[in-house]
Amino acid sequence: MSVTTPKGFIATGGSMGIKPTGRPDVAIVASATGAPIVAAATFTTNLAAAAPVQWSRAALEATCGEATAVLMTSGNANAATGQAGKDAVADLATAVANHFGVASNTVLVGQTGLIGIPFPLAATSNQLPGVLKTLGGTVTDGHRAAEAIMTTDTFAKEVVVEGPGFSVGGMAKGAAMLAPNMATMLCVLTTDAAVEATVLKERLLAAVEVTFNRLLTDGARSTNDTVICLASGVAGPADPDALEAALTEACASLAEMMAEDAEGATKVIHLVVQGATDDAAAHAAARNVADSLLVKCSMNGEDPYWGRVVSELATAGVPFDLDRCEVSYGGITVCRGGEAVAHDAAAVTAHMRERHITLTCDLGLGEGAATMLTVDLGYGYIDENRTTS
Amino acid sequence: MSVTTPKGFIATGGSMGIKPTGRPDVAIVASATGAPIVAAATFTTNLAAAAPVQWSRAALEATCGEATAVLMTSGNANAATGQAGKDAVADLATAVANHFGVASNTVLVGQTGLIGIPFPLAATSNQLPGVLKTLGGTVTDGHRAAEAIMTTDTFAKEVVVEGPGFSVGGMAKGAAMLAPNMATMLCVLTTDAAVEATVLKERLLAAVEVTFNRLLTDGARSTNDTVICLASGVAGPADPDALEAALTEACASLAEMMAEDAEGATKVIHLVVQGATDDAAAHAAARNVADSLLVKCSMNGEDPYWGRVVSELATAGVPFDLDRCEVSYGGITVCRGGEAVAHDAAAVTAHMRERHITLTCDLGLGEGAATMLTVDLGYGYIDENRTTS
Repeated sequence: MSVTTPKGFIATGGSMGIKPTGRPDVAIVASATGAPIVAAATFTTNLAAAAPVQWSRAALEATCGEATAVLMTSGNANAATGQAGKDAVADLATAVANHFGVASNTVLVGQTGLIGIPFPLAATSNQLPGVLKTLGGTVTDGHRAAEAIMTTDTFAKEVVVEGPGFSVGGMAKGAAMLAPNMATMLCVLTTDAAVEATVLKERLLAAVEVTFNRLLTDGARSTNDTVICLASGVAGPADPDALEAALTEACASLAEMMAEDAEGATKVIHLVVQGATDDAAAHAAARNVADSLLVKCSMNGEDPYWGRVVSELATAGVPFDLDRCEVSYGGITVCRGGEAVAHDAAAVTAHMRERHITLTCDLGLGEGAATMLTVDLGYGYIDENRTTS
Repeated sequence: MSVTTPKGFIATGGSMGIKPTGRPDVAIVASATGAPIVAAATFTTNLAAAAPVQWSRAALEATCGEATAVLMTSGNANAATGQAGKDAVADLATAVANHFGVASNTVLVGQTGLIGIPFPLAATSNQLPGVLKTLGGTVTDGHRAAEAIMTTDTFAKEVVVEGPGFSVGGMAKGAAMLAPNMATMLCVLTTDAAVEATVLKERLLAAVEVTFNRLLTDGARSTNDTVICLASGVAGPADPDALEAALTEACASLAEMMAEDAEGATKVIHLVVQGATDDAAAHAAARNVADSLLVKCSMNGEDPYWGRVVSELATAGVPFDLDRCEVSYGGITVCRGGEAVAHDAAAVTAHMRERHITLTCDLGLGEGAATMLTVDLGYGYIDENRTTS
């Protein structure tokens, strides 16, 4: 269940003192041979992209899709940290590159934590070599890496998917600031499939589009979102469609775990919008519902207040006709033709009490459909986010 | 301080049994002569517009901008209520029209409350004649009208603005679902200025654009938003610019009161975005910041976490350059050139403890500017909105 399950990878996790608590805050996933392998990534669309995002984006462009290692740290986002932040990333990457004897631009970096706090390079970089020495290839090592990227996560998020003749492993951190495109999240995927860099990138983007980009917890797009996939090639060539399917399954599992562990959430909502004029319209409508504070509050209160859902569908900027609209909770229709319809209220109440809620909206206009994963809004989210101290 | 301060108006408020508590739930503002006068209005852009919105929009079109009275009810939104909801509005308007002996399409209707619950016409309409009998022309009557449109408001919102030779009065209800365009709000403005219907509409829209449409509490655009202005003409012709200025001042006051009384809010945030490439870009950036759960949570926790502000500015879909970005709280700059800058932290802390917080973001790119009024997000909002019961 780890990034080290696919053949050809080593990993570790440890502490370099970024987190004042001394908890694990650095993870490394690398090519077991120590030589560069195929790599692809996708990053936040936030225009205030953090220094590590800028570094990794440029590195992958320079190498045309190769990397030896991924370094991920938690406890400081190294975002809005100016030139010193950029220099810090270069120093960290170079330290890892020197360990392997490779060019520094084959080391990708992801960081997560608070924005706008200078990265404590001087106080931490001397502890990186010690962590690098613990690099190993067992599943346990992968788990330590997954634990080291946690911030407010309550559990490490790991996955393994077996494809025909290859496997995909993954680890991620999520918890807050989750929104298309993308969640605030760091994710490292590994595969032993042999694949060209351009194909890997194309298939990775396709997988992310229908998984992480369909997850919305609080609507924020972070400065640090990073999904990196490394391919060792040890298992030999794989069918690209099979690889995309395995990547999609891995990303979907990790996205579910992120929703499950979203800051303060008590409900995971599986939102389906169908009957839209096209898929894009369905997606826009789903996003408007998922982003609604009022809908999220209703979910927290286990109240099937479909009026708020209809109101959000009708302000999504897509074609909408109230008279054709139908809304169901757990498959039980509560609104049909744009007005209340007799239904088994006790069954709806029982469904609302569950942790996983299915909310289906049929716009009755066409064949467009979209799904989205979201969460409720309650005291827990506010407790986590009202102060940084 | 009321809709009955301008000459030529009568008003009342009372109960017709829509609210199970028996609290006031119906308000009437009418031409004192009982004959139609000039009227203009603007309504929600929500495509699931409630039955009263559909009625009033059609009525004003049919009369080319005339109305005898405005009927407003609270306790049931009469939205997503199908044909029965439309019939209910027609019945209510006709009852008021019969009282005055005018055509029913000179009676405008606004309603607020829960969505999707059938309007209890049979149980309430017989109490409307009793309320109509109490119609009078004193300031006290206007206050009773303002109280009768409250839902979760904690105080009645009223304003009077004196223009050169005329006056403007207003009342509104807000509290939740406040967002451009517009707040969930009902608002009736009155003026004794003599003005043509087309001019009144143009000036009313201009006033709303820079006031109610710059107020964002929870980002929801309601099914029922309605702003209606009646002009009796009793004071004679007014300069249109002076009228617009008075309408704008009245709307701005009411918008401030709505922010002050937003559901569960503990802070009113005066957000300024300047230095944008143009005003539209500044407005989009301001809206993204105001709409951010994380920024709202920080405000609730009195935490000047500018990193979240920068992150939202950078995902607004408008030109942004982190290196030029500056953020200030209460005029004290905490971020300059996209990174932390030394500042008087005690002064920032003191400002964050105030009820009114000023957050200024300078994008450093041009002359575009926008202001927005928003609020924090805390337990109170969740308490108000997690269940409807």
